[in-house]
Amino acid sequence: MNQEYPSILLERAVNEFTRLPGIGRKTATRLVLHLLRKQEDEVANFSDAIIRLKREAKYCKECHSISDTEICPICANPSRDHSVICVVENIQDVMAVENTMQYRGTYHVLGGVISPMEGISPADLQIESLIERVAAGDVKEIILALSSTMEGDTTNFYIYRKLMQYDVKLSVIARGISVGDELEYADEITLGRSIINRTPFNGKTI
Amino acid sequence: MNQEYPSILLERAVNEFTRLPGIGRKTATRLVLHLLRKQEDEVANFSDAIIRLKREAKYCKECHSISDTEICPICANPSRDHSVICVVENIQDVMAVENTMQYRGTYHVLGGVISPMEGISPADLQIESLIERVAAGDVKEIILALSSTMEGDTTNFYIYRKLMQYDVKLSVIARGISVGDELEYADEITLGRSIINRTPFNGKTI
Repeated sequence: MNQEYPSILLERAVNEFTRLPGIGRKTATRLVLHLLRKQEDEVANFSDAIIRLKREAKYCKECHSISDTEICPICANPSRDHSVICVVENIQDVMAVENTMQYRGTYHVLGGVISPMEGISPADLQIESLIERVAAGDVKEIILALSSTMEGDTTNFYIYRKLMQYDVKLSVIARGISVGDELEYADEITLGRSIINRTPFNGKTI
Repeated sequence: MNQEYPSILLERAVNEFTRLPGIGRKTATRLVLHLLRKQEDEVANFSDAIIRLKREAKYCKECHSISDTEICPICANPSRDHSVICVVENIQDVMAVENTMQYRGTYHVLGGVISPMEGISPADLQIESLIERVAAGDVKEIILALSSTMEGDTTNFYIYRKLMQYDVKLSVIARGISVGDELEYADEITLGRSIINRTPFNGKTI
């Protein structure tokens, strides 16, 4: 759509929105015109929330997750199990695991996975600081919770090699059939892995 | 998803994004974390574009479309046909008609349609100023290009009643089968209307 905007201010705001992932020109126009119909203080709140987040957000010195403080609420919480670290790619993943309510350990946010295609090397990620946390002692288990992709597997292996020399248990999260999924629609690789990694069954649904 | 955010700044920015139409919590989180990965000046540009649009955008005194100037580029253009006015609901519609490259007249943006359900009465819309433009003379035709809904039809009829006393031609845009659509998938009302409003055929595809 070769759209001619009746206002440069409008066009500029639409262009900024189209930089966001998954937002095309039509959606961007709709979002911007929606904001334009709001009161000025509401628009100011929107604009201010974004710029303040960027200027003031901190990253936890321990796990590198986003935080309003030097140490994030999870790392600062004495009732969490600091001997277990769940290694994830990004902040969304921390929130996703937290939402399961199944995990009481701490996290380590890598900031991505090793990807030669995208030029992301181990040095671009928070791997060194993970090794340092382990080297400092007190860590008993590292749970690798990265994407089930070639890049995720590469990163898992890289971390495995780096941690071999330390006395720490290493595990990866289980891959298998999603809860609620029918077997016939599962892909062969997932199904194959879920057979190989079968778990003992004691009569109870897990 | 009952998400607990590790940062209040993050949560506030996400909340602001969820106010936008069609943006849920998960999408909002993704958009905000995307912005967070950008440079500060890029985020400042984004934030600034929105607030400046709201503070500085003007509305054309003639047609009420958005404009950076008192009179919009279309109304100020002497090569446009000022004797024809296309009546539309909003600014997006002006851009949609402009994109067709089929129209050389001017516009009149109502700011919505009459909707008793949503409490929008004729007084909330730019109908009075449309009558004034017609009453001033020089206008030969009004093209009603509102939504094909009950509210659009009501608004068409209201404008028709208001303009009856003036010597001005009134027309509505054609409704029918969309170009490229197969007949069997068209709804009955559209198909029925397109039969009633059939146009003479001279052997050329229109």
